[in-house]
Amino acid sequence: MDSMADPLDIDVPVRWTDLDAYGHVNNAAMVRLLEEARIAAFWQPPPEQIALGAPPPPAALPVGGAGAAVSTVIASQRIEYARSLEHRFDGVVVRLWLSRIGGASLSVDYLVLTRDDPAGEAPYASARTVVVLVDAETGAPVRLPAASREQLEQLRGEPLSFRD
Amino acid sequence: MDSMADPLDIDVPVRWTDLDAYGHVNNAAMVRLLEEARIAAFWQPPPEQIALGAPPPPAALPVGGAGAAVSTVIASQRIEYARSLEHRFDGVVVRLWLSRIGGASLSVDYLVLTRDDPAGEAPYASARTVVVLVDAETGAPVRLPAASREQLEQLRGEPLSFRD
Amino acid sequence: MDSMADPLDIDVPVRWTDLDAYGHVNNAAMVRLLEEARIAAFWQPPPEQIALGAPPPPAALPVGGAGAAVSTVIASQRIEYARSLEHRFDGVVVRLWLSRIGGASLSVDYLVLTRDDPAGEAPYASARTVVVLVDAETGAPVRLPAASREQLEQLRGEPLSFRD
Amino acid sequence: MDSMADPLDIDVPVRWTDLDAYGHVNNAAMVRLLEEARIAAFWQPPPEQIALGAPPPPAALPVGGAGAAVSTVIASQRIEYARSLEHRFDGVVVRLWLSRIGGASLSVDYLVLTRDDPAGEAPYASARTVVVLVDAETGAPVRLPAASREQLEQLRGEPLSFRD
Repeated sequence: MDSMADPLDIDVPVRWTDLDAYGHVNNAAMVRLLEEARIAAFWQPPPEQIALGAPPPPAALPVGGAGAAVSTVIASQRIEYARSLEHRFDGVVVRLWLSRIGGASLSVDYLVLTRDDPAGEAPYASARTVVVLVDAETGAPVRLPAASREQLEQLRGEPLSFRD
Repeated sequence: MDSMADPLDIDVPVRWTDLDAYGHVNNAAMVRLLEEARIAAFWQPPPEQIALGAPPPPAALPVGGAGAAVSTVIASQRIEYARSLEHRFDGVVVRLWLSRIGGASLSVDYLVLTRDDPAGEAPYASARTVVVLVDAETGAPVRLPAASREQLEQLRGEPLSFRD
Repeated sequence: MDSMADPLDIDVPVRWTDLDAYGHVNNAAMVRLLEEARIAAFWQPPPEQIALGAPPPPAALPVGGAGAAVSTVIASQRIEYARSLEHRFDGVVVRLWLSRIGGASLSVDYLVLTRDDPAGEAPYASARTVVVLVDAETGAPVRLPAASREQLEQLRGEPLSFRD
Repeated sequence: MDSMADPLDIDVPVRWTDLDAYGHVNNAAMVRLLEEARIAAFWQPPPEQIALGAPPPPAALPVGGAGAAVSTVIASQRIEYARSLEHRFDGVVVRLWLSRIGGASLSVDYLVLTRDDPAGEAPYASARTVVVLVDAETGAPVRLPAASREQLEQLRGEPLSFRD
């Protein structure tokens, strides 16, 4: 695709408890799958965990989990479901890219796919999260550093359009 | 309000595990709070559970949980966060109304409030879910029965507007 | 009962997502129900949340959630399932008492009941959690204050026996 | 080890939402990690998911998830925590073996480890789950087939001992 240089494909395992009693991945669980993909894409594991096999993050945002100086806040999230997802031992593939790179925020667009659909033709869900970088102490927005910005440009792609 | 005859206020307890390591209700957990409010508003408890104290649902959708003939499917969901929500022993109040009543679907709009804000001036989050009624066997959309429709009209209100 | 002066009965709502695709409350979700009962029994809500309707805790442990000076750590937990629990709009009743009051720790015993079984004859599950009070900063065990101890004695009861 | 021929080491990712506001993997989340390890060890993925990369299960129990003829029920679970587990991008290693092989049931013993501790010297938690095979329709216990039994013997090991 011209317009989407390099979306990332992140494998995310589905847990048995992601399903609800309808036998489908519950909509709140789908939000967790997106979150795990986003963390794998953007958070920095400590070096000693990378040494132990944690995948180094493909994009270099200066953020991490508890204890990091910069943390992320979700400003908004939207998701559309195309069909229901059942338990899959092979997990899902979350394809993600950046549909907007702002001063202190990013719009992450996603397709939730399975491994038998590398072309992304029949996504289970499509979604967008607006993430804001904030100072973990004060909560004030933190500007994306120039170095991150350059790397993030590699992930820039066309925005999804949503029905509702 | 003229335009919003009768929004429903549903008390939803916050669980300790709704918080993540940032000390805030995680965005996936917020989706669960909305789901619990929606279930309290629209699903029919079995009569023997009402006899034991389950609140009878304020609106009469012909749907239920596992085993019911008609079930609900989430077509889409969007949510905007105004500020972070911490653990609250007094839970949250989810204010909800219908911003659209379709043939087989409903748009449920919500504000996530706390009890000290009955006027709804400082919501933690605002959200919308598009719910479709489907036949639990076939998955085919099920038209809202006329009787439900009349009751649901009592809940009709103005659509929220969303930033993103 | 002679031996169990005053067990506490705590109403705990069951959430739709507590169920897994077997249609039953998943065993990890059951652990959450026990946790919510324990928090309702022992943690201190901030006064302003009590003013807004948070139930004051029946027992006065000097502990709270995030930010409290004393926090609780789970040393061990065991649970036995008698039969599977389905979605209940009327929630469950978690009956709990203290089977042991140690220097810095408590053994909390529980029965998971429903409201149609006030005599506790057919529990869904029986469980025990060993909770240790620790200094939230240092992690060091904190002795139960004498004042708490007196109140906790009101909750003392016979230990459950477990099969396995 | 003589007594523990072949424990299985299963990599289980830790999710951000497994942590609670204390910054540790919550005790209910730990139960989910054990469940995911058990599923990876014993449930049969459908062949088409194995073709797509789902790991074939190391042990051949005739069980699966929703829709399988034989399902599993948890009879009991116990867990002891040695120290708290923080967020880990490299996940945990759940080491598991069978401390008892009954007619229709198994006792699965586990240590929750990290990758820098292959000798299992400093487990975060140790646990046991008693799993019963049941007919998914009737709920009646199902005897372990002879073929499974032989394979399961490879996993037999010494029972853990628990403090409480």
